[in-house]
Amino acid sequence: MTRPITKDTTLCMSLAARPGNFGTRFHNYLYDALGLDYLYKAFTTRDLAAAIGGVRALGIRGCAVSMPFKEACIPMVDELDPSAQAIDSVNTIVNTDGYLKAYNTDYMAIAGLLAQYRVPSDTVFALRGSGGMAKAVACALRDAGFGRGYIIARNEEKGKRLAGLCGVEWRPDMDGVAARMLINATPLGMAGGAEAERLAFGAEEIARAGIVFDVVALPVETPLIRAARARQKTVITGAEVFAIQAVEQFVLYTGIRPDEALFRQAAAHARG
Amino acid sequence: MTRPITKDTTLCMSLAARPGNFGTRFHNYLYDALGLDYLYKAFTTRDLAAAIGGVRALGIRGCAVSMPFKEACIPMVDELDPSAQAIDSVNTIVNTDGYLKAYNTDYMAIAGLLAQYRVPSDTVFALRGSGGMAKAVACALRDAGFGRGYIIARNEEKGKRLAGLCGVEWRPDMDGVAARMLINATPLGMAGGAEAERLAFGAEEIARAGIVFDVVALPVETPLIRAARARQKTVITGAEVFAIQAVEQFVLYTGIRPDEALFRQAAAHARG
Repeated sequence: MTRPITKDTTLCMSLAARPGNFGTRFHNYLYDALGLDYLYKAFTTRDLAAAIGGVRALGIRGCAVSMPFKEACIPMVDELDPSAQAIDSVNTIVNTDGYLKAYNTDYMAIAGLLAQYRVPSDTVFALRGSGGMAKAVACALRDAGFGRGYIIARNEEKGKRLAGLCGVEWRPDMDGVAARMLINATPLGMAGGAEAERLAFGAEEIARAGIVFDVVALPVETPLIRAARARQKTVITGAEVFAIQAVEQFVLYTGIRPDEALFRQAAAHARG
Repeated sequence: MTRPITKDTTLCMSLAARPGNFGTRFHNYLYDALGLDYLYKAFTTRDLAAAIGGVRALGIRGCAVSMPFKEACIPMVDELDPSAQAIDSVNTIVNTDGYLKAYNTDYMAIAGLLAQYRVPSDTVFALRGSGGMAKAVACALRDAGFGRGYIIARNEEKGKRLAGLCGVEWRPDMDGVAARMLINATPLGMAGGAEAERLAFGAEEIARAGIVFDVVALPVETPLIRAARARQKTVITGAEVFAIQAVEQFVLYTGIRPDEALFRQAAAHARG
């Protein structure tokens, strides 16, 4: 921060159970670079309703929402954008004069990438995971017309619920599943995670696939993406998902779309 | 601001109907100078309860409260310090893990100055005004044992209420009032105000007095203080009140007492 903060400086923020520093560093870097009189800070809370009430009452322009608040905040906003309605989950709240509209920029990013990579909608997919990101991917696939595929999840209840949501089959593992598009929506391969070196799919599964999509954003090249690239597969990375969703969030808060070079600088700075 | 903001940066703020920039500039200057990982910003609100709820839920460490919220916020806090209880008015809220304790550092500053200048408690005073600062002065006088004096206020209802509060007489004007201590607690003489050049007391009243106290903080030397100094009277200035109350607020939020030289720099910077 090199700009002076004044009473007119616009505050944006995030709410998470365990806030990180990425968003704070990322947004403030862009505000500085673009000369915007904005300020960003991560918060946590034990009282979500009061926190969202505070966002509204204090005129805080934007609020990113992370686990475990993505669904709980829905009754507290005034309007759901189709992106949040599609998956009943919010990751971005925009406050316009006390009116709160909620979005899901993860969903927007995933839907955008499926279109950008021109993945045919009859591609058979295997989506591993049953959490929030898996739901965003499954709903984006459903809404893009993908009807042939599998939800791979050890948790039967959550797996079946997600499979039902997008009209495909649930399987506990990959046994007997042949898929052209492999999608990891678990934390497997995440930097610093308990299973940073584990791959969500086996070497044979990767060999048989045409496209591999990993939603894990850090490291930029996960073990799964590295393995897929080594076999000349088309890859879609979590870093791309993250980049697009973060830009969309930035645009929603400020009305300004940073160019790609600047965005990359900000993301590199934020990763530190 | 030259420090990077992180998720761990502590936020302090103010709530006012029409926020100014003084507090934001003052506190951030001191945070920078002392290397404190704090951040200060002024806010306004149309929903005081939700704003205070947000302070609590977001872990905002401190919140200065200005007109018209000083009395309205009382039911929203968990505890009143004696300084706020003395005058039923709050200008500072400190949040410790979601527990809100409210103070009035104006009262603290005025009581401190009366003691510091060793004003004898049998001094006959004339206090002009009936607003929030007049109440702070009147209660500080009462609590320091001053029992002989007058509340001078054109508004009979407010004037009588305040006179009753501290057990002295109300008068609509200075006719027939002889006072050793003159106190201005109106906006007369305030820089940029409608009556910046008007004095709260006449030349003869000043000549008869021994001590003149002006709560107007800007300009640092008000017309009343200038007139009193020209007649070699003891003066207590609004700039002193402001300085002490601001330091007490800073200490309550951070636990750190800036030295006087640094404090003066911060105040000069904030007046800008």
